[in-house]
Amino acid sequence: MKKLILVALALPSLAFAAQPASPNSQEPIGQQAERLRDAALADDLAWNILEGLTTEVGPRQAGTEAEARARDWAVNRLTELGFSNVRIEPFEMPVWVRGEEHAEIVAPFPQPLVVTALGNSGATPARGIEAEVIGFDSVAALEAAGNESVRGKIVFVTHAMAPTQDGSGYSQFGAPRRQGPSIASRKGAAAIVIRSIGTDHHRNPHTGVQMWAEGVRPIPAGALSVPDAEQLERILARGRPVRMRLTLTPRNIGRRQSGNVVAEVPGSDSSAGVVTIGGHLDSWDLGTGAVDNAAGVAITTAAAHRIMQAGRPRRTIRLVLFGAEEVGGGGGATHFARHRESGNVVLVGESDFGADRIWRVTFNLAPANAGLADRVTALLAPLGIVRGQGRANAGADLGDWTRSGTAAVDLSQDGTRYFDYHHTPDDTLDKVDPSQLRQNVAAWTAMLAAVADAPEAIAAAPPAP
Amino acid sequence: MKKLILVALALPSLAFAAQPASPNSQEPIGQQAERLRDAALADDLAWNILEGLTTEVGPRQAGTEAEARARDWAVNRLTELGFSNVRIEPFEMPVWVRGEEHAEIVAPFPQPLVVTALGNSGATPARGIEAEVIGFDSVAALEAAGNESVRGKIVFVTHAMAPTQDGSGYSQFGAPRRQGPSIASRKGAAAIVIRSIGTDHHRNPHTGVQMWAEGVRPIPAGALSVPDAEQLERILARGRPVRMRLTLTPRNIGRRQSGNVVAEVPGSDSSAGVVTIGGHLDSWDLGTGAVDNAAGVAITTAAAHRIMQAGRPRRTIRLVLFGAEEVGGGGGATHFARHRESGNVVLVGESDFGADRIWRVTFNLAPANAGLADRVTALLAPLGIVRGQGRANAGADLGDWTRSGTAAVDLSQDGTRYFDYHHTPDDTLDKVDPSQLRQNVAAWTAMLAAVADAPEAIAAAPPAP
Repeated sequence: MKKLILVALALPSLAFAAQPASPNSQEPIGQQAERLRDAALADDLAWNILEGLTTEVGPRQAGTEAEARARDWAVNRLTELGFSNVRIEPFEMPVWVRGEEHAEIVAPFPQPLVVTALGNSGATPARGIEAEVIGFDSVAALEAAGNESVRGKIVFVTHAMAPTQDGSGYSQFGAPRRQGPSIASRKGAAAIVIRSIGTDHHRNPHTGVQMWAEGVRPIPAGALSVPDAEQLERILARGRPVRMRLTLTPRNIGRRQSGNVVAEVPGSDSSAGVVTIGGHLDSWDLGTGAVDNAAGVAITTAAAHRIMQAGRPRRTIRLVLFGAEEVGGGGGATHFARHRESGNVVLVGESDFGADRIWRVTFNLAPANAGLADRVTALLAPLGIVRGQGRANAGADLGDWTRSGTAAVDLSQDGTRYFDYHHTPDDTLDKVDPSQLRQNVAAWTAMLAAVADAPEAIAAAPPAP
Repeated sequence: MKKLILVALALPSLAFAAQPASPNSQEPIGQQAERLRDAALADDLAWNILEGLTTEVGPRQAGTEAEARARDWAVNRLTELGFSNVRIEPFEMPVWVRGEEHAEIVAPFPQPLVVTALGNSGATPARGIEAEVIGFDSVAALEAAGNESVRGKIVFVTHAMAPTQDGSGYSQFGAPRRQGPSIASRKGAAAIVIRSIGTDHHRNPHTGVQMWAEGVRPIPAGALSVPDAEQLERILARGRPVRMRLTLTPRNIGRRQSGNVVAEVPGSDSSAGVVTIGGHLDSWDLGTGAVDNAAGVAITTAAAHRIMQAGRPRRTIRLVLFGAEEVGGGGGATHFARHRESGNVVLVGESDFGADRIWRVTFNLAPANAGLADRVTALLAPLGIVRGQGRANAGADLGDWTRSGTAAVDLSQDGTRYFDYHHTPDDTLDKVDPSQLRQNVAAWTAMLAAVADAPEAIAAAPPAP
């Protein structure tokens, strides 16, 4: 089922993409960077990992038995591939699981709507609730509404999120999911449904975590698919009272085990520090988490493996496949707490934005490492990657490191279609373009070769905000 | 929520698209054809009908209360618009309704799959059934299999349907749905699931009717979404025994009422015969039936209305909004049985292939009417429509007429993306491009003006096969 969509690459140097790297060459890794990069453009390992994890495990929600199977799968695979120090670093976490999910317009135009519960949603009774719907164009409009107009009703909050290459729409237009439920509960709403935080037009709702503000009573909180949200907008626009029946029966099942899977490519110089990279192993339960984030697991694993096959880098590369990212970053926080004291992590980078091509690189490096940034930029340019103005922050799982002054490199993927699939049942293997996946592996391989083998020290960087 | 996607139209004559027709002009309709066509390129009525039916009624499965609401909605709307002889022609039909729908792989890789029941599917017990899966690449491969290899198993049949502009893939690749269930039942299978007969990659399964062959015991029969079918193909490719749990609990609820909604634009010459056009009012239950077939209802209604506003055509135009097309064409057969004896229907045409642009016109006309075909072709050419080689057959609801020798015109829509949405939850308003919808109305308006007002007699045509 691989889609062989070949990217037309115009640059002559890349015509040698299939030229093999010299395995276990005595040539320093850093000096092999261009060749390793180009060889990665014919990489099959990332697809193999991605296909294996999404097929043989499938959905793998944090703290569930499925995520445990994913950890076992990853330990086996990383061991087979020859990584060192392959291990699970376990932790416990509270687990919320989905129940029944139904919504329907009762009046004036009876019809079903497609809904899914947001993470940590409260539950309706098994038979559901029925209430009048009150609609808002934004969280600000909901916030401005009088409590008496909201009390006892089902709040609906819509928005106008559109695709962006850098994914910045998610932050701004994600407010209905992140803040809407707590605001609605404070105002006495019976429940809230939002327009999915997504950019597609398919009947696949987007779930995602939301955290109840301090002291706020959980209420049922769901997301309608985008076509269903637009349908509700049209129905509300008729100006007649709209009644909805909503059934969401998720529950909290107590504390369960999650864990991070860690593996290493040992470096030759233990004083040079560790480069930590990775993606997250858990996914939401609705899809098989191909884009979010088996892709990041596959890309970083394949790149680290290519370095390992080519020789011994100066610095140890630590590959971390995080648990429990989707539900609030438990794995990232646990890893940081466990490893920060070692003091030897000098640079971090995470892949957690799908598998479309990397279009931009940004850095968070000390001024003393300007030369390293320039070398990485030059290595990436033949892949069509531009150097961005912003600062790297290493994503959800490694952000604690950058906030405490660890250097970071961000390889930013094209997010134009990322929020078409994000957190939906539609996040499945067929959404990944094998050719763009290989470009990711090539970029990560080149970056890793340069930073893991850099002859200069990698200094502490300005802490990220 | 209208998407204002404007088609760039290069032809100078179409620069006058917004030029109004002369309402109730004394000029014969046939001589106004070009102006009416171009005015229809700014038509809003079709969108208005489409938006209204899909929003205010939503899904409207044949024989259900929702289809009855659709009939009432249509009667009101057609009466408001000024059509004559607006009426419901009722009939009775057996009704099958969907129940619970779940599928999951139990071993070797436990995970849920998205499934929906095919029309007339048998039911599992409420707790579902569990059995080994046996996969086939085609109905021919299933047919060739020994009964002992299939007995007691869940049969899975896949295929390789790809998009085609003329939709011809549906006929060839639809065999797993149309024939698969009966073959599987004859061989003693516990159930059958097929790869959806569709060309998308979304987790929206495609339902559709299938009829049990004479004497065959109904078994549970479902369709997996395309990504789920591909997942099952990958799992089966591992070569280990695959077990599935399947729950489908549809039921037959006995005979219920359906009906056709009929309206007319009266002609000036009762001896010249009637031109019958239309679409179907019922939809599958999963989506709001925007593409299949509120679009056809909207296009043919808007075109007939434009003729009515412009004056009195020579022939009566009879607009029929059929009931029960999806479940086997009850409305079309009933209409034919009721009206064939009048002997005065001289030409038929149905719109039932979505709302994308019309790219081709074909005819089934007597040799004596070659001039009429040429005039229609010339009227349609500025809309980018080519004359095809094949013969018109007027579609599912009006095919009985062509098979008995009534002349027909087919205005074929671009089907490239039709089977992405067909019979899925994803068949919703946002899939319709208002600009292409208008091109449809323009083509129907021009064709109707020419045929309804043709000065020559429209003769019987060679019966379609």
